[in-house]
Amino acid sequence: MTNILIIGAGRSATSLINYLLTNATKYNFKMTVADVDINLAKEKIANNTNAVAISFNINDTEKRKEVIQQHDFVISMLPAFMHAEVAKDCVEYGKHLATASYVSADMKALDKEAQKKGLLLLNECGLDPGLDHASAMKEINAIKQQGGEVVSFKSYCGGLVAPESNDNPWGYKFSWNPRNVILAGQGTAQYLEDGALKFLPYNRLYSQTDTITIKGYGNFDAYANRDSISYKEIYGLQTTKTMLRGTLRQQHYCKAWNVFILLGLTDDTSKITQADKLTYTDLLNAFLPNGTGTTKEKLKLFLKNNWDADIEIMLDYLELFSNKNIILAEGSPAQLLQALLEEKWKLQETDKDMIVMQHQFEFTLPSTNNKVFKTNSSLIVLGTDNHNTAMAQTVGLPLAITVKNFLTKQFTATGVQIPITAAIYEPLLKELEEHRIIFNTQHLN
Amino acid sequence: MTNILIIGAGRSATSLINYLLTNATKYNFKMTVADVDINLAKEKIANNTNAVAISFNINDTEKRKEVIQQHDFVISMLPAFMHAEVAKDCVEYGKHLATASYVSADMKALDKEAQKKGLLLLNECGLDPGLDHASAMKEINAIKQQGGEVVSFKSYCGGLVAPESNDNPWGYKFSWNPRNVILAGQGTAQYLEDGALKFLPYNRLYSQTDTITIKGYGNFDAYANRDSISYKEIYGLQTTKTMLRGTLRQQHYCKAWNVFILLGLTDDTSKITQADKLTYTDLLNAFLPNGTGTTKEKLKLFLKNNWDADIEIMLDYLELFSNKNIILAEGSPAQLLQALLEEKWKLQETDKDMIVMQHQFEFTLPSTNNKVFKTNSSLIVLGTDNHNTAMAQTVGLPLAITVKNFLTKQFTATGVQIPITAAIYEPLLKELEEHRIIFNTQHLN
Repeated sequence: MTNILIIGAGRSATSLINYLLTNATKYNFKMTVADVDINLAKEKIANNTNAVAISFNINDTEKRKEVIQQHDFVISMLPAFMHAEVAKDCVEYGKHLATASYVSADMKALDKEAQKKGLLLLNECGLDPGLDHASAMKEINAIKQQGGEVVSFKSYCGGLVAPESNDNPWGYKFSWNPRNVILAGQGTAQYLEDGALKFLPYNRLYSQTDTITIKGYGNFDAYANRDSISYKEIYGLQTTKTMLRGTLRQQHYCKAWNVFILLGLTDDTSKITQADKLTYTDLLNAFLPNGTGTTKEKLKLFLKNNWDADIEIMLDYLELFSNKNIILAEGSPAQLLQALLEEKWKLQETDKDMIVMQHQFEFTLPSTNNKVFKTNSSLIVLGTDNHNTAMAQTVGLPLAITVKNFLTKQFTATGVQIPITAAIYEPLLKELEEHRIIFNTQHLN
Repeated sequence: MTNILIIGAGRSATSLINYLLTNATKYNFKMTVADVDINLAKEKIANNTNAVAISFNINDTEKRKEVIQQHDFVISMLPAFMHAEVAKDCVEYGKHLATASYVSADMKALDKEAQKKGLLLLNECGLDPGLDHASAMKEINAIKQQGGEVVSFKSYCGGLVAPESNDNPWGYKFSWNPRNVILAGQGTAQYLEDGALKFLPYNRLYSQTDTITIKGYGNFDAYANRDSISYKEIYGLQTTKTMLRGTLRQQHYCKAWNVFILLGLTDDTSKITQADKLTYTDLLNAFLPNGTGTTKEKLKLFLKNNWDADIEIMLDYLELFSNKNIILAEGSPAQLLQALLEEKWKLQETDKDMIVMQHQFEFTLPSTNNKVFKTNSSLIVLGTDNHNTAMAQTVGLPLAITVKNFLTKQFTATGVQIPITAAIYEPLLKELEEHRIIFNTQHLN
């Protein structure tokens, strides 16, 4: 019998928990689902006899350590910044750990001790990061097995809304933590382009975008995502000239989001007090340079070439020019914007979300006269409703399946790992196909 | 006998420590100067028999609490984010505390308990914040005593380099924590202008500046500083139409600094690895859009109207186009920039720094037909050398004198305080005149 502790029972844990519940009897898993909100945990396990729900506060150190000691494998679905304490406890008490989050410096620091104790610290095993690594590595290794050399690698992923539920001009609804969407891209994006090192700051990120086309689904905007360069080594692409990971949004989204950046509405470091005395139009006006005319006229003047008819429709949709009151008593500009968008971009009960992923490979093969071959690998996953989202499936299933594969000894590994080895990604990608998560490979030449 | 603990013996603590050492016998002060670097603490107290130097690590909780318990009054010269732990200990053990830093949320939270225990938590009692509050409140209260009403208040302060030591085209050298200078202004500046609420984001802060003239010292750039609006209430200026606090730099500095912001060089949230394999020209190129020509030509093209001959001279001075190697192995763009500027903007042994402060008041008086009177109050302080800086004097003396005035019962106060009451600022400003820190009031009409 294996005791599995799942910490965090929010929306993105739905498919993870369901998968493990479904397979619990078969593999002799006993599960504990822990959340600050015990009702959420109870709801997720329903009446499954292989699982119990507990109330759990990550900051209650004593209880946290006690609960972790009672299990063999811990899956943390907490926000990324909360993993560190859990990881330290896991290593201390000799427990394996899995998360869907980026490997942090704190996590890296535990690598050696985890290896020494024979413990797995699996990370970046959700959608992006996660499924992107697994599916990219499958293609990369296939190219290498032919003696080929990747010269360009671009990988894009977005959590969007399905065409049939796409009824707002932004083409976006929240299937994921809204705060992360509002703050997305702050910092410096780092990538390689035709051999040149490229650093792109936040103030230009959403205006310097690529366009990606997926057959049957149209065009998408793509903006560069964090540090792509670090994955060169990790993916074994030491000689690639182009290395870019990007995030997808529906077409036009990025140029409209750029308006918020230019205005200053995505700052999360300063607090505006007495915000509830303001309308969103007041807020826009406070951020706009002095001028005459309506708020929209002043905004047009301020934006110059960055204004167009698409943007006008998208901002009108948010009621930014119609004296809509701010509800929050105080908050950062980003928080005030988030409060509005949570209302306007709500994923409704019957709405379906959509995951779009595309890898673009360019590579040479031996004895083909330096011809550059182009292959795309694409994935579309549609959600069922606002509970069984494509986001929850594609984040939760890779994590759940990989944990199951580890516990059933389909692979062995210790220390900090991400799903880039064949032993991890092969059985994972195969089983995901049973869940209709299937990549479509297209050879373009 | 009063036992005073001074935590932090860096450059900005020099004048503070000297003042208290000089007055120790007179007022029966026994002083402990604590620093992680005991030699720095020893150096500061020289052989004064009223003081001891100790090694002190703020993160050693046990030692920290033990040392704080042995004293009556604690002065924290630590970086602002470190005050919270000290303040909690002070309130727990019934000790008074003073800092030169902004009142933080953590500090505010201790107000009630400090009041209950009769403890003073004095903050914002350095230069800016500190001396600015004191000197502004003196003028504001004088206007109010005539029955007048302030309709516009602007206050500017900068820590610069004295004209005789001003030998670089930026007109700037570090007399203060370089990191704070590099990151200055990140967030949203908030102020009032002619009755309108103004929010200014970082990406426009250094391009939307005022010009301030100080007779005999020429023109200065001024950019808006943090949240000015919160001081409306604090200064008792409920009906003012304009309320702005700003930071001064030598003319042209802001438009050149804006280049760094546009490029993305002041981001402190992302880490560039293997930075020491790059030159500063490589770094610029990575941040520049694709193009042909030299780095400088590409930068000119990128900046369009934001480029001019002044900026060219300033950037050339930093050797940004001359393949100068980056020395740090890794760091944020802001850290890489800081490493360069610490070399280029070093305050040399015999260099003199300069503090410039100017308040601009506009006010009406009863029965004068709504005439708007204009009064400026200005301060210039020059340093002696790179140890006895104007910065150290103007930060340290207000704090030292106010602590002495409290301990000698020239005023009583409990809870979180800043130097805005006559009981605090009157004796302070008077005594500062003995140290040649004298405001010059000019009635402009």
